[in-house]
Amino acid sequence: MTFDPPLSPALLPAGFVDLLPPDAEAEAEGTEILLAVFGGHGYERVAPPLLEFEDSLLTASGAAVADQAFRLMDPDTRRMMALRPDITPQIARIAATRLDGAPRPLRLSYAGQTVVVGGGVAGQSERQIGQAGIELIGPDSPAADAEVVSVAAEALARLGVPGVSFDLTMPLLVPSLIDGLGLSAATRTTLMHALDRKDAAAVARYAGSAADTLIALLSAAGEADQALAALDAASLPATARAYSERLKASVEAVRVRSPELRLTVDPVEFRGWKYHTGVCVTVYAAGSREELGRGGRYLCNDNEPACGLTFRPGALFRAAPRRARPDRVYLPFGTDSAFAQAVREGGRVTVAALEPHDRPEEEARRLSCSYVARDGNLLPIA
Amino acid sequence: MTFDPPLSPALLPAGFVDLLPPDAEAEAEGTEILLAVFGGHGYERVAPPLLEFEDSLLTASGAAVADQAFRLMDPDTRRMMALRPDITPQIARIAATRLDGAPRPLRLSYAGQTVVVGGGVAGQSERQIGQAGIELIGPDSPAADAEVVSVAAEALARLGVPGVSFDLTMPLLVPSLIDGLGLSAATRTTLMHALDRKDAAAVARYAGSAADTLIALLSAAGEADQALAALDAASLPATARAYSERLKASVEAVRVRSPELRLTVDPVEFRGWKYHTGVCVTVYAAGSREELGRGGRYLCNDNEPACGLTFRPGALFRAAPRRARPDRVYLPFGTDSAFAQAVREGGRVTVAALEPHDRPEEEARRLSCSYVARDGNLLPIA
Repeated sequence: MTFDPPLSPALLPAGFVDLLPPDAEAEAEGTEILLAVFGGHGYERVAPPLLEFEDSLLTASGAAVADQAFRLMDPDTRRMMALRPDITPQIARIAATRLDGAPRPLRLSYAGQTVVVGGGVAGQSERQIGQAGIELIGPDSPAADAEVVSVAAEALARLGVPGVSFDLTMPLLVPSLIDGLGLSAATRTTLMHALDRKDAAAVARYAGSAADTLIALLSAAGEADQALAALDAASLPATARAYSERLKASVEAVRVRSPELRLTVDPVEFRGWKYHTGVCVTVYAAGSREELGRGGRYLCNDNEPACGLTFRPGALFRAAPRRARPDRVYLPFGTDSAFAQAVREGGRVTVAALEPHDRPEEEARRLSCSYVARDGNLLPIA
Repeated sequence: MTFDPPLSPALLPAGFVDLLPPDAEAEAEGTEILLAVFGGHGYERVAPPLLEFEDSLLTASGAAVADQAFRLMDPDTRRMMALRPDITPQIARIAATRLDGAPRPLRLSYAGQTVVVGGGVAGQSERQIGQAGIELIGPDSPAADAEVVSVAAEALARLGVPGVSFDLTMPLLVPSLIDGLGLSAATRTTLMHALDRKDAAAVARYAGSAADTLIALLSAAGEADQALAALDAASLPATARAYSERLKASVEAVRVRSPELRLTVDPVEFRGWKYHTGVCVTVYAAGSREELGRGGRYLCNDNEPACGLTFRPGALFRAAPRRARPDRVYLPFGTDSAFAQAVREGGRVTVAALEPHDRPEEEARRLSCSYVARDGNLLPIA
């Protein structure tokens, strides 16, 4: 007995989609290209499960995404499990437990699906989100930050994504400037919102003695060299200066490994970085506001330095050029199987007739084939 | 506040596992090989979501697995969703709705994860189960049955799985013999259990006038040609004879497409076939009791003929030989990046030092590298 309206069988819950041909293939193929590039740099693949006990999945760095997790009960143990809203905390768990004894630097990669309750992240209507990424666990250095960025950039280049840009930030820099101001909680929140909106007038009103510095940092955002020069020129207290110097060192290390990469720096950006402790990065493609990926430095399982980056294959395959689809060859009923195999080994797709047809060319056309096999040859379909 | 015992962070719910290196890579790579073979035969990839509304996911052929599905509530609509316990019903939904207008035969492939509540299927302790398969929708013919078997066999050959055997059955044959006997429900259940156990004495006791025929069929199970000869010799009523003839025609059609394939036939096997309407198949590898895959003929969305086969990549990668892992090359700090790229393009993995080391050979050995790069050469590690 239900009072729901009659349901179209095509209707999926909001945020869940069917990928059809050729999108499903493009996304799967693109993901494997990413993982192949990661693997080439020594990032070895792990595959944690879709579900874990919530008290394991949603602690440590996982706590930041706990409000986005679907829960369900394990009927065996009556304990609550959660569908993973993010894979990075699972990699951190694996690094801290089963791979605790593996040598560092520990390089891991992964690809899989995550599910979020939704409604939380602006502009994000998808609730099943693919992730494919890397984690570099152990070292805390500009060279480690740079490796993660460079490997990610190489993966995007392999996919042919045009106009890639990596936007670096140091999300603890702004809080370090604000924490010493003695602001009320309400004023602090107002100021953070003003910084998020890049509203210089409001920053001037609420930031007290830090106003000049924060406004200087606001206007510093942009191309990396100019932004770092503006940071150099700004008057920063010691803690903020240390963050700024690390950001600068990481940018320089990226320049060494990937001299051609387009880098921008926004020293005031902090939104969406929940558990990060160092340089963070967001990846964009020219002409799209959609994030292709993001990552940064954090403490793996609350105690080991780590830096990672996660791509969203769903966004990536919208930005990457499509590969040409292979030709389809129609095989009339009874076509020699060795010939058919040779056609496939030549990189073409075969579509076998399952019964005789009087007009194989028509049948081939109906099935989107551009060739028909006849007497050991491939005849193009007009 | 919780009364649960203290939790080791490594503890996952029963039936869920972390795949570590090299297993995660082997399973992902094997799955992509399967999908590449499927794609070569014109099976185009689709990717339905992990979650659907339960009244969409668990109807039609999905009803057979409804008791294995985890449910959760969509907070937006307050409607119940289910985590998919099987992908085939989703493919049937797509074929009947979004691809309703696509030409038939419709050839679709898929790979993804399913989650079952567990405890239901004997010997099956996993609760997250990967599936990778094909569906051939539209035709109902021995040639269609044969294509599904042959494409699956080619995929296993590509993976190098040794000693593959396809066990064919016709799960409606035995019910057609029993339904006319006028047995009580209890006797029918007892008889079905006896057939399932292949207990000829019990079959003789409970099968009434069908006893001789059923015992003949029990002993027919085995190598395909012998089994079909025994079926020919058996005395079958018209309906059972029609099922038997179709099974024979499908075996003959497989022989045409895949003459070398090892085929067995068990005409009495019906266990585990819940929504199937025609020839069904189970795939085994020599020396393993574990099913590599299974499939068969059914009605897609209750009205369109379809035949499919689903592999379990988790079982497959236990049966398939492991590919050699690529050599790992240690790159001392500051190694030329063009040289490093050439090493990767040669099929080797590079592991970059993130800081200078006095003894790079030791560091290389510690990181499981078999070469160290020096002056543009690769030096083997002793």
